[in-house]
Formats: sequence, structure tokens, C-alpha cells
Amino acid sequence: MLSLLTTHIAHLGPEGTYSDIAAIAYTQWLQAEYGVATNRQAFPSIQQALQSTVDGLSHYSVVPVENSIQGSVTVTLDTLWQLEKLYIHHALILPIAHRLLSASTHLSHIQRVYSHPQAIAQCQQWLTQNLPTAEIVPTRSTTEALSHLNQEKSSAGIASSRASQLYQIPILVEAINDHADNCTKFVSISLEPSTVGTRTSLAFSLPVNAPGALLKPLQIFSTLNINLSRIESRPTKRSLGEYLFFLDLEASLADPQTQLALDTLKACTETLKVFGSYSVISALSKAES
Amino acid sequence: MLSLLTTHIAHLGPEGTYSDIAAIAYTQWLQAEYGVATNRQAFPSIQQALQSTVDGLSHYSVVPVENSIQGSVTVTLDTLWQLEKLYIHHALILPIAHRLLSASTHLSHIQRVYSHPQAIAQCQQWLTQNLPTAEIVPTRSTTEALSHLNQEKSSAGIASSRASQLYQIPILVEAINDHADNCTKFVSISLEPSTVGTRTSLAFSLPVNAPGALLKPLQIFSTLNINLSRIESRPTKRSLGEYLFFLDLEASLADPQTQLALDTLKACTETLKVFGSYSVISALSKAES
Repeated sequence: MLSLLTTHIAHLGPEGTYSDIAAIAYTQWLQAEYGVATNRQAFPSIQQALQSTVDGLSHYSVVPVENSIQGSVTVTLDTLWQLEKLYIHHALILPIAHRLLSASTHLSHIQRVYSHPQAIAQCQQWLTQNLPTAEIVPTRSTTEALSHLNQEKSSAGIASSRASQLYQIPILVEAINDHADNCTKFVSISLEPSTVGTRTSLAFSLPVNAPGALLKPLQIFSTLNINLSRIESRPTKRSLGEYLFFLDLEASLADPQTQLALDTLKACTETLKVFGSYSVISALSKAES
Repeated sequence: MLSLLTTHIAHLGPEGTYSDIAAIAYTQWLQAEYGVATNRQAFPSIQQALQSTVDGLSHYSVVPVENSIQGSVTVTLDTLWQLEKLYIHHALILPIAHRLLSASTHLSHIQRVYSHPQAIAQCQQWLTQNLPTAEIVPTRSTTEALSHLNQEKSSAGIASSRASQLYQIPILVEAINDHADNCTKFVSISLEPSTVGTRTSLAFSLPVNAPGALLKPLQIFSTLNINLSRIESRPTKRSLGEYLFFLDLEASLADPQTQLALDTLKACTETLKVFGSYSVISALSKAES
């Protein structure tokens, strides 16, 4: 049973990952804004974190949706489409600063690097230039291999500075991202509809896989002068070449124009899911990551 | 130096992966169609395979672009955008049939499953239902862990039937894909422009991140009655919220209408890259995978 006095936040774990850092930041923001007591719970996958909210076991789940370098976190989009009745309450922009963590004090001694494939991809050029012969070993999270690093002196991990503190592994090299302006957008998700905020997210499938089919929805927003800040396609998983579309609007459901657009959109889409309106919290400092 | 008598095909390795199977299929098709001698070379990454074509070390590279369940192979799209002067010559649709490979003869004995994260994701429901307590270990390819499996009787790998033959690991369970209609689209890439074929692929960035900016390009194709079979957005990697768009047209560059569309498109895009026209080879049987 959920405690009514405490706000429960589900997120992808384990501790020290960027999802954990985003959940902490959101928790602190909720406490500062609403004075509520909060409790974080880590889950082994994004699906399980979101399912805990569907099952009423958490008030919110905080999940990544998009990275500025790698693009969409497709499992989040796919799960939001599959699950029923989930709404976005806030978006958080978290700066990502990857560090090379190792018990060794010499970069030339490093023969193996562990990390999550996304973090490895975001440091690919740095790795190619600085550790061209190192074995790259994918892990399920940025922190998974860190507990072994004190025994493996010739190994390193790519993770956050918080992970360095938590797992007591020194930072050998700071800021190894290939792109300095690397950030990830997270969203907080709840069962309660949200209609307040400057952004609105939705997704739809199209009745036929026809040429003009996507044009119509886009024309609706253009005609009503509603900005699209993002459009992303995902496979329907029925057959190759059939897509769902995820749109972010610079508009609020509280605005009658947005409601009019959505009413018109219903008529030219097969299934339409509106994930609600929300505001963006971007007060997270680089130091936190 | 490239041999002029042999057509060199670069692909993502190692042997027994789906990329290897696609390269074999393309090699066989080239031999049957043109009677040329061919030679395949495996590379450790998609970038390195494509770079070998840019550097003139291979005539073609065969790389995955899209899976019917997981969506775009983003590293392929990003590399095609970054590298200069690469053109698509053919598309191949490969059915994907994942098998559970193990030296054990009892599913109940399996405590660990190795595979590439994409293959794991495509069998997630099957794994949750049939091996809920097994440890899932990500690898850099579907075949990476197979050489150890004869020693690790309580472990299994998710790979192709060709991998089962090559690495001499029996198939414990056939067809463990969550979606039966699972296929991957590969493209063959060369330095030589290609203008023949029923499909045309292109990508562009937009001058400003404005509301109607994407609408204009889509209207051009709609007005000229050119079908879009796909639209995919990718981050520009400059800042969160700036995108590139990858489009597949059901049209040939040999058609003046397509040329007209592209001329008009140039005026409303920042950078436009046309990857050429090509035909789709879909004669690959499920048995091969």
C-alpha cells in the first residue's frame, strides 16, 4: 500500500546512474516546491518503473525520454504507448558529464573499460583517441561494474561523479564526453491527468500507410500556429514500414486552440494518445551529475 | 589496393551475426546477378565498415538501417550523415529468427543468457516468461559469448541458426522472438552514385527550428504526389531539440518529378544529402537466418 503522507518516486536503478541523479533532483524539487516527504525506489528496467506507477505502487516514475546526442530512449516511448493512462507531469533536463573512473592513476595502464552502451557511444571518439587498444565491455548500467574496479587496477568505468563517490572509485579523467553539450531529458509520469504547463506530448498511429497521411496532422498544427518542438517515429511492431508518431507541442491543453487541434487530429488518426501538458524544470546544475 | 577482379564487401562482424548473414545474402545475389567474384570482410563496428568504403578499401559496405521492432539503427543514420559521398545501391530485407543456443538440454538449467542488447530486447517477453530468474548479460554481438558456451553448461546465448552451426552450440529453443514478423532492413553502400531503383533516400537539416519548417518539405512531396515510406528524426548533436530528418521516398531519381521535388527542397533546407535511388531485394528466406 502507498503511504499517503509520502510521495513515492520510481526510477531506473541502480544508485549512481543518471536516472538515479534525475530522480534525486526531481525529489528535491518536489520537496522544495510542495514541502512533501518523498521516497525513491530503484527498478531494474524502465518498463518496471513505469509499471509500478500503473499498479499504484508509486505516485511518479522518472524516466529518460531523449538524449541530445543519442536521440530517443525508445523503450520509454514504446512503453508509454503500450501502457494505459499514463500522463507526463514535468520534464527535467539533466546535463550529462561522463567521467572515467579507475583505481589506477595512469591512463596508459587501462586495458579494459566498462559502461552502459549509451555512455560508451557518447564517449566513442575519446575512447578511440585515448584508449585505442582497450577492450570495451558493455554493462547493463553505468555503475554495474564499479564494485569490481578496486580489484581490477587495469580497468576503468564510464560513469557520473556521484557514482565515483558512492562506489569509492577515483575519477581518473574528467569530462570525456565527445560533445560538451550533452544532456538528457527525463519526464515524471503519473496516473493523474495533467493539463497545466507550456508543453504537450502526444502520440498517434495513422489509419493507412499513405503518402499524405502524416501531412494532415502536421497541417492541423501549422494552421492553428502551434509549434512542434519534436517529431519522432517508432515502428508499430506489426510490420516493417508502419509507424507511430510522437509529437511535442509548444502549447497547453488549457488553451482552447490546443483542444481544437486535438479534436481535429482525432478524425485523421487511428489511435491518438495524449500524455498531457507539463512544464520543464531545467534548474539542474552540471555539478550534480 | 582493391583487386579489380573481386568485389569487396565490408560488414559488421563477427561471423554468424545477422549482419554477416545479410552480407552473405548480398554477396550471393551479386554473384548470381552479375557473375562477379566477391570477398567479404568483417569489421568491429558499423562506422569502421562504412569508413572502409570511404577509404576505397571496400566496394560496398552492407549495414543495418532499421528493424521492424526496435526501429532505426541510429549509428548507421548518424554515420551516413557525417561521412561524405556515400550512396545506397540496394536494400535487403532479412527475416530475423532468434534461437536460444546452449550446451544444456534443459531450459530449467539455464541461469545466464548472453546476447547483444538489441536481440535481448527483441526476446524480452519470452525471457520474462520462460527464464524469469536468469541473469541477462549484454555482449557486443550475438555471437561474442558463444565460444564459451560449451564450458558453461548453465548458460545460453541468443543468436541465429547459422551461429549455432558455426560455433557448434545446439539450438535449445527455436523462434524465441516476441514478434514473429521480425525483420531487419540492410542497405549496401558505395562511393558510386546510384540513380536507378524505385526508392530514394535523403536527409536534411532545417535552417531554423521553427514550427512550419518541417511542414514545407513534406508539402513538396505531397504536392508532387510522391509517397514517403518513412520519416525519422535524429538529433543534430548541437543542442537538445535540434533535429535532422531522414526520408525514404517511393520515387526514383530517374523521374523528373523527383528531381523537381529535390530542387524545391534545397531552397527550404539547411543541408540536404541525397543518398541515391535503389531497389529492394527481399528474396531472402527465413531459413537462412
